This record gives sequence, C-alpha cells and structure tokens, in this order.
Amino acid sequence: MKEILLLGAGRSSGALISYLLEHAEEDNYHLIVADLSIEQAIKKTHNHPRSGVLVMDIHNESQRRKAIAACDVVISLLPPALHVIAAEDCVQLKKSLVTASYISTAIESLHHAATANGVLLLNECGLDPGIDHMSAMEIFHRLKDMGAELISFKSYTGGLIAPESNDNSWGYKFTWNPRNVILAGQGTAKYIENGKYHYIPYSRLFRQLESIEIVNTGRFEGYANRDSLAYRKHYQIENIPTLLRGTLRQEGFCNAWNAFVQLGVTDDNCVIENSETLTYKDVVESFLPPGPNLTVEKRLAGFLGWKENCKEMEMLQSTGIFEAIPTGVKNGTAAMILQNLLEKKWVLKEGDKDMIVMVHLVEYMLGGSKHKLTSSMVVKGDDQIQTAMAKTVGFPLGIVARHLLKNQIKLKGVHLPIHPDIYNPVLKELLEMNISFTETTN
Amino acid sequence: MKEILLLGAGRSSGALISYLLEHAEEDNYHLIVADLSIEQAIKKTHNHPRSGVLVMDIHNESQRRKAIAACDVVISLLPPALHVIAAEDCVQLKKSLVTASYISTAIESLHHAATANGVLLLNECGLDPGIDHMSAMEIFHRLKDMGAELISFKSYTGGLIAPESNDNSWGYKFTWNPRNVILAGQGTAKYIENGKYHYIPYSRLFRQLESIEIVNTGRFEGYANRDSLAYRKHYQIENIPTLLRGTLRQEGFCNAWNAFVQLGVTDDNCVIENSETLTYKDVVESFLPPGPNLTVEKRLAGFLGWKENCKEMEMLQSTGIFEAIPTGVKNGTAAMILQNLLEKKWVLKEGDKDMIVMVHLVEYMLGGSKHKLTSSMVVKGDDQIQTAMAKTVGFPLGIVARHLLKNQIKLKGVHLPIHPDIYNPVLKELLEMNISFTETTN
Repeated sequence: MKEILLLGAGRSSGALISYLLEHAEEDNYHLIVADLSIEQAIKKTHNHPRSGVLVMDIHNESQRRKAIAACDVVISLLPPALHVIAAEDCVQLKKSLVTASYISTAIESLHHAATANGVLLLNECGLDPGIDHMSAMEIFHRLKDMGAELISFKSYTGGLIAPESNDNSWGYKFTWNPRNVILAGQGTAKYIENGKYHYIPYSRLFRQLESIEIVNTGRFEGYANRDSLAYRKHYQIENIPTLLRGTLRQEGFCNAWNAFVQLGVTDDNCVIENSETLTYKDVVESFLPPGPNLTVEKRLAGFLGWKENCKEMEMLQSTGIFEAIPTGVKNGTAAMILQNLLEKKWVLKEGDKDMIVMVHLVEYMLGGSKHKLTSSMVVKGDDQIQTAMAKTVGFPLGIVARHLLKNQIKLKGVHLPIHPDIYNPVLKELLEMNISFTETTN
Repeated sequence: MKEILLLGAGRSSGALISYLLEHAEEDNYHLIVADLSIEQAIKKTHNHPRSGVLVMDIHNESQRRKAIAACDVVISLLPPALHVIAAEDCVQLKKSLVTASYISTAIESLHHAATANGVLLLNECGLDPGIDHMSAMEIFHRLKDMGAELISFKSYTGGLIAPESNDNSWGYKFTWNPRNVILAGQGTAKYIENGKYHYIPYSRLFRQLESIEIVNTGRFEGYANRDSLAYRKHYQIENIPTLLRGTLRQEGFCNAWNAFVQLGVTDDNCVIENSETLTYKDVVESFLPPGPNLTVEKRLAGFLGWKENCKEMEMLQSTGIFEAIPTGVKNGTAAMILQNLLEKKWVLKEGDKDMIVMVHLVEYMLGGSKHKLTSSMVVKGDDQIQTAMAKTVGFPLGIVARHLLKNQIKLKGVHLPIHPDIYNPVLKELLEMNISFTETTN
C-alpha cells in the first residue's frame, strides 16, 4: 500500500490530517504522522485505521531516512528552516516533497539534483504563499490566452475573524503565528505603481492604506507587504507597471496598531530592563516621551494627537496595555511583552469562526481598452480547530500529495505552484470544497 | 632599540603617527607603520629617521607574527573586527596592545590568557570611547573620595565643525566614518532618568533632544545614544538614578536630519531598484507618500508639515537631494545613496578646522545638599588633516603606548581606560597639549 509521510503535527496540521484520512480509503494509502510528541500525533489522527504515528526528531538521521525511505510522498509542516534537512533526503531517496513555506536558497540549490532524480520539491503550496500564486497564475494565463496585456496587479490577503465571531474592537484574533503578526512590516516595503517605484518605511506603513470592498463581506483596509517586487520573476510579469501585495485587516485596525508602532513597542531587539516585574502600564510609560504628570492614557492620547475617548483609544484599552499588572516576561523585548499580552486577549474561543479573505485586483488592456477584474475568495472556519487558516493552508498540500501519489503531476525539480499542471487540479478540488473565487469584470 | 608597531595607516592615523615620531628620539624608540598600502604608510611617516614601514596583510599569519614578535608594543587602528587577530598573537608573543575600538566579546575572552602572560590589551582608548571614560572616571573617583553620592550623569560628545569653518547650514562636515553618521541611532535607545527607564524608537530619536550650552562655545543639541545603560557596569555606578549618553550636534541639525528619518532614506536594508540611474529627486519622490502633482520640495514640506521656505527646507535643499542628477550608486540602499550625496557636500576643505565638544553633566549629593558639576572639553583641529578628531583619537593611544614602552603601566589583562594608572598620565599629558576640561560646580 502507498504511504504519505507528514512531518510535524503542529497547530496548523488538523485540517490537513483530516483531509488526508478522509481520502485514504478511496486512494488506498496510509498516512504516517511523525512528530517529536507522540501524543500530539495521536490526538490528530484519532487512531484512524489508515493512520500511523511516529516519534521523530528531524535531526536524528537514521530515524528520518528510514521514515522517508518507507513512504511515497512527504509533506513537511516543520519550521521553515528545517525543510531542507528533509528535502536533501527526499532527493537522495527519490521521494517528492511538498511544503507551505517560502522557497529558500538552500532548497533552490537542490533543483538540478531533484530533476536528475525525478523528484518534485514543491514549495509555497499553502494559502499565502500558495492559493495566492495559483489563483493569480490561473487569471494571468487566461488573460494571456485572450491576448490581453496585464497593466496592474494588486493582491491582498488577510487572516481575519468572521463577523459572527467578531467580538473585540480590533476585529482580530490570532489564527497564525502571533510573533509574525507583532513584527509584521518591519523594514521598508517596496512596490511599483504606474511604472514608479515606491518605498514605505515601517514608521508610515500602517498609515498608507488602501480601502477595499469585498462584495457581500465588507470593507477592509490593506497595507503593503515588505517586497512586492520579488513576484515579478515568479509570475513572469517583469514589466508590469503596477504590482503590490499586501495584508488585509478590518477597518480601523491599522490606525490603532500604528499607536504601538509610533510608541515603539513592536521593537524586538532592545531588551527591556526588569521586564518581568514591570507592569504593562510601566512599559507604555517608558516608551512615551517625557511629559506632564498625567494618566498614561491621557499622555498616550496626547502623544498620538487623539481624543482620550476615541475609538482607537478604546481599542488600545481593550488589550490591557494600560493595566498595572506585571508582564511576567523574563528578559523580554517590548515585542515579546506585547505578544504575550495580546495572546491572552485575541484568542479564538470555542466555536469561534475565523475568516480568510483574499482579493486580486487586476487591470489589463484588451482590444484597445482598459478592463478591470476583481477576484476574491472568502473562506470561513468551522470552529476554533478547523479554522479557515488551517483548511486553506492544509488542503492544497493534501491535494498535491494525493496527485503525486497517483503520478498525476509530471513536473520535476524545485518549483512553486505556478504551473497549470499543479494549480488546475488544486483549484478544481478546492472549488468542490467550496473554497472558490468570485470574479467580476468590467 | 625599542619599537612600537602601528597596524593600519588609515585616515585617522596622521595625528597619532606625528605624535609618536615627535617623541621617538626622547624615548629612544622606532615606530614601524604596517599597512596594506606601502604608499599610505610612507605618506604618513615621511621617511622620518625613527620610522619604518611594512607592507602587511593582517590575514597573513607569518608576516603578522614576525612583525609583532619584533616589536615591544602594538597599536591597532585596523577595522574593529580585525583587532582580535592581532590580539591573539599579542597574548602569545607577550606584547601589549592598545586600540580605540569598543571592546568585543572575542577580545574579552582573552582576559585570563593575557593576564597569565603579563600582557595588557587596552580597548576604547581613543576619544569616544576613550577620553569620555577617562575624564568621567577621574570625576567619579574624585567625588567618591570627597564622600559624595552620584545621582545623575549625562554625557554628550560631538564631532563638529569649528565656528570659523562653519560655512554650511547644517553646521556639520564629516570628520569620521560617514556611514556611521548616516546610520546613527537605528534601533531603540535606552537610558534611565530619576530611576525610571526610558526607551526611544528611531522614528522619534531626533525629536527628543536636550539643549546644552557650552561656555564660550555655543548652544548645541544632544540626542541619546543606543545603549546608555551598558556604562553602569564599567563605571561601577550600577545604582545611579539618571544615566544618559548622547551625541551633540549644532542646533537645528536634528530637526532637519529627522526629515531623512521620516522620509525613510536612512534605511540600509532595502535595495533601491535602478539606483544608479535614478536621480536624487526620484529617490525622494519614491519615498514620499502618494500625493498631488507638485514639486518634490512642496510635497516634502507638506509631508513634514513645514513651510516650503523654512530654514530646515533650505538645509535639505543645500544637500542636493532635490536635484535631478543621477546618483551613480549601483545596487544602492537609500542610506548608501544619501551617504554618497552628503560625502560630496559635507567635506572638510583645505584649512577647515573641525571641533570636538565633550560635556559631562554630573549631579551629586554632598553634605545633605545637591550639587551640579559641568565639565566640558572643546578641541579644535589645526586643519583638515590634523583634525581635532584625529588628535583626540590618536593622542591617548600614543600616550599609553609610550608609557607601556617605559613599563609605567602595571595593569595586565583586558581593560578599558577607567583605572587611575591609565587615565591620570593620559589626562595629564593631554592637558599639556591643551586638550583639557573646564569644570564648573555649584
């Protein structure tokens, strides 16, 4: 019998494991879940008859190679830096590998060896990166076949909270690595618009927003991701005059988040003295410019030029950042303290539904006139476990793995899911699962 | 005959070499200057009868060890990361070493070996770090002997331009590594005031200023350095309620510099597309938020909330940043482009005099009442070669080397110049050269 090996049974693996077990009988395969924690693996597979679990330390070479040699296809949900360890074995042992992580130069360097050994190492095959690439390339190839010329591509994705579960003023709860949310956007963002390059320093990132209306869903705001330009090469749209990729948030989020940025408490380099015993209020005070002896709320509102009772101040208040409670974070940076605070507040409750929103705003020339195409995907989670995030990250990985098992993908070497042979079957099956795009053109 | 070996004859070595050659006869030693470029070394030693030159690649072990074995004391003006290569040889070959660079963990780890071999590895023995440590410790030890309790120490240093050579609106020309000036302050600054820690993110650093009057010299503004707190341990003032170290600039400099910070053009991580053919004006435009079709000057003034004809806008104008001239900087970051521009404008002309200003603002309790002590040093350069910067960095190194040669410093191991055995002779000889502090108390 064939075998799929899943490396890592962390918090985003539930939907993927369920999907793979649902189809195991039909496709006649076993799923082996390998993790450092056997409990973690068993909790996710529920002793399903088509499942097996393995205790595995990815750094244990003999364990790892034995498991990879015994399977037919590998999916890695390991931390990004560890994929390459599995990838090297996969190439040697002639097994294809699928991950949802950004391609690394270490993985890229395996291209020739993988091709020679008839192996596919497919990266960026989750949601973002993943479904974004696939849905964009499907549009680009379709427009190209029509003879259209692409002149603008803006694409935003947000891991948000469904309106029915939206019970905090930020319209946000963590559905993904909280650390990445805290540190999002540090550095300088770059994009191109009407043939001109634009750069946005971090200190202005949450003020330079685009407002985006998604039909039947609502109005959101988008801020630019770090490097939009890297996608020109992948997408073969090197001369496109406008290209921007960004992150979506509920309206109002960015303006309030900008208070943290301006205050300086998203910094992750400078260790805060006595961080463990300091209260959250102390931390805010220590970042405020010296000022009169007023409450911390009054001083912060004054610093930001806000009224003390404005919506944004209420949003800040709701996080607990003004409370005289010790942070409990040892040798913490301000970013670590902020993360620790928000992780307590922005947590998915039982039954909470998250919501993924992805939107592509495309402009193209056809027959001498300009056309606009908007393609958007809205996916809601079932509950706080089967989240939209886990589904949209996991399903593409699972779909590709099943196709690889059936030898239905001929591509070899190191790739992204930008080829029709990959994106067509994935988008088709996602559609059958009601994960689909709504397209309007004018 | 005894021998001093100087590693590196770069741009700050002139004053040190002149000083050492002036005293070579009197102390009966030779000075050997080793550099990658023999021309560079000869240009500085002028074939002085007491001098010798060596072509040396510091990475060439046999060359390096031979030169170190042959000398009695080593001074290193190498790039900071390379000191440790010489330091390891110095320990083995039992030669003491003096540098003007911040102590590194690599050098620190040599403490026991250096002590065992009877060798002194003295770091931070230039101006800042260097004279700042020596003059502060002299004050601290003197106050301690009086029975005073230190309650506040603020110390600022600036490498500035003398009023008679101040012919640009910034009151600034480069007398030190321009790259460090462009990148100054990136990260989060921390200091303590009245027992409370304060943090300043880079985006606010050039707005949180202290105004400082130096008797007979003028009024300056100071901004906080990255980490003021590290000095508590070195200076043995762990419980001082107020401690801040900062950088001095001419009044108005920081407000204008803040325009670059807010615009984002001090960023050194993001590579600017087509940076070589882009004009300076294009660069400014690419960092401005999208706006109406106005001149770049009008747009920048609007963005900053300034009047277009204000003093700060004239300062920006004077740098050439609004000119439609290609930068010529290949694959440059914005910081590299800005540096390249300012290096053409802020250059010391023939006969220009630079000026070092250092000031310590000390508060202490004595006999139940609070006292203030202000100690300031103002040093002017002779011309654009014998700068105040080169003299104040070079002389302490030379003085210590001469004392080491005469066995007048007994200290062994890895140290900073915070011991009376070192700072007393250095400050005494600096005073004889008219490099001295003016002290007022009340």
